[in-house]
Amino acid sequence: MAHALAMARRGLGRTWPNPAVGCVIVKDGRVLGRGTTAPGGRPHAEPQALAQAGEAARGATAYVTLEPCAHTGKTGPCAEALVRAGVARVVSALQDPDPRVAGRGHDILRRAGISVTTGVLAAEAAALQEGFLSRITLGRPMLRLKLALTLDGRIATVSGESRWITGPEARARVHLMRAEHDAVMIGAGTARADDPELTLRLAGYDHRPVRIVVSGRLDLPRGGQMEASIPQGRFVLIHGPQAPQEARDHWMNSGAELIEIKEQSDGAVSPAALMRALGDLGLTRVFCEGGGAFAAGLIRAGLVDRLEVFSAGLLMGADGRAGLGELGLSALADAPRFHLSRSQQIGADLWQSWSRSA
Amino acid sequence: MAHALAMARRGLGRTWPNPAVGCVIVKDGRVLGRGTTAPGGRPHAEPQALAQAGEAARGATAYVTLEPCAHTGKTGPCAEALVRAGVARVVSALQDPDPRVAGRGHDILRRAGISVTTGVLAAEAAALQEGFLSRITLGRPMLRLKLALTLDGRIATVSGESRWITGPEARARVHLMRAEHDAVMIGAGTARADDPELTLRLAGYDHRPVRIVVSGRLDLPRGGQMEASIPQGRFVLIHGPQAPQEARDHWMNSGAELIEIKEQSDGAVSPAALMRALGDLGLTRVFCEGGGAFAAGLIRAGLVDRLEVFSAGLLMGADGRAGLGELGLSALADAPRFHLSRSQQIGADLWQSWSRSA
Repeated sequence: MAHALAMARRGLGRTWPNPAVGCVIVKDGRVLGRGTTAPGGRPHAEPQALAQAGEAARGATAYVTLEPCAHTGKTGPCAEALVRAGVARVVSALQDPDPRVAGRGHDILRRAGISVTTGVLAAEAAALQEGFLSRITLGRPMLRLKLALTLDGRIATVSGESRWITGPEARARVHLMRAEHDAVMIGAGTARADDPELTLRLAGYDHRPVRIVVSGRLDLPRGGQMEASIPQGRFVLIHGPQAPQEARDHWMNSGAELIEIKEQSDGAVSPAALMRALGDLGLTRVFCEGGGAFAAGLIRAGLVDRLEVFSAGLLMGADGRAGLGELGLSALADAPRFHLSRSQQIGADLWQSWSRSA
Repeated sequence: MAHALAMARRGLGRTWPNPAVGCVIVKDGRVLGRGTTAPGGRPHAEPQALAQAGEAARGATAYVTLEPCAHTGKTGPCAEALVRAGVARVVSALQDPDPRVAGRGHDILRRAGISVTTGVLAAEAAALQEGFLSRITLGRPMLRLKLALTLDGRIATVSGESRWITGPEARARVHLMRAEHDAVMIGAGTARADDPELTLRLAGYDHRPVRIVVSGRLDLPRGGQMEASIPQGRFVLIHGPQAPQEARDHWMNSGAELIEIKEQSDGAVSPAALMRALGDLGLTRVFCEGGGAFAAGLIRAGLVDRLEVFSAGLLMGADGRAGLGELGLSALADAPRFHLSRSQQIGADLWQSWSRSA
């Protein structure tokens, strides 16, 4: 199953709206075939692994990181493909919460006389498929927020100077994180301050996550590197009803895809409505890179599942610019709580991954 | 030498103004004697280890974490004691920068025909004796600053609620850190906000670090738990020339020791003059526990050698109270830089030790 999970990890960021699943076919201690959900979500992992194994799959064990599907897609359900191939046993990590599957995949296998074991490395599989599970059960993608901060939580000096706080190794790790997400998202403040490309600059990676910029009024920098980079992949602008027609036309002509969100909070696009819209697009894993005010809105709404904090060994003082906007908390008990999943020194910086506590 | 360093560590916080030294006497692979500088600084480590070894020290090797002293104290120099005991070899980690020694201890040994090796685990020994080296070479104690912060660098909500951000395990670790220092220090703001006892509450520890409160005008809370705890050890109040006579009399009557610093910066006691005064007291290791404005003054003056950051998995937002005051930086290049020495999860919190970069 660990091997199957490693296969599944290869698909992260590329298989949405489908989950990234891994499948390994084993007989007599030998691996006969293995597969990962293909980019775009089809074909699934199981038919690819079965095709590799061929006739040898008869009597083998199939390890899958998620219950095989029971609904008919382009190639027929995977549960039936496993039956047809004559595997003797299926070991799966998780039952699929998708109502089109939800135990029916396992049922098809059992009715065909195949031995089925479930729940193997379930926690690891749930962590890997967190985005898919979030979209199915909550109707929105999993959301990770990156914070690159000084030790005292700042991102710029009084004068606004901020590039770069963290070192090149940490910035490379951020690009690797982008690669494991379906989409990268920023707010209008960061778009105006940095005019970023938001593309993936990693040798050997051809994956292009969807780029999402959220701006209620579409008051975004024109003619800069962000606008120039739009044709390099899918670029979605999310705005409110008050965005001027002229701005809508301008960005549409530049190649951006526009989505209007009617629901507002404090004059800005409502974070909950935004996340529902991203779920409706089919996105399962979204990586937010700021800025502080936009991120604070997502935090206040309880929508941030994980914080990826990069701490740089610098101090900027209380007169420096804060990395996170206002949360309006009155009681300490209301402060959003996270628990440490992992920490690691990366170059001169300390990366910390904190998951939201239930 | 690692054993000798472990012996030295036991003396941290107790031997000032002397360094905490460890000595181990070894012959034929057997430990014959070991010693640590006694509380108060005398007797030194070497005569204690030699006394344990007795006649067997003849022909043995002595491992010492610092060059044996060459100046005559109450019991004569340690270098001569090693000669008299007939040891064949001395391995030392560091040459003593104290001008009364500075190589003369090693010379005495060599002239007596003893084989001398120096520089063994020198970096580890320098780290352990950082406070002593700082006082001898810079005229001030080594200064560590504790920062217990949320992930976004805050210490309290908008309404000022702050107890407790970090968990009980992290707070116990802070008490352990206090125990390894000669003195614990806070500014007037923290004294007024928390009225703390600043005593050591750790089972099995009888060490009482000097307590230092810095307040330019001696406007400190009266009749509270801080004042009540004064008789529990040495309590030093450091103030400026403008402290009213009435306040000086009040705190003197409560058992505090008063030190006036004439030099001021921005109306407050000058951080550099403060640290020189602590060096003149003989202190070698000082642990500062805030508050934010006082700490920022020490940081601005380049006097903080190490940051002990405890990060709690909480967010409070930009409207929460900052854990560090203003630094007045205009350029990112001027931001004080630290490098990561160590990080460790403690309870639910992440402890990070960052040392000042040269």
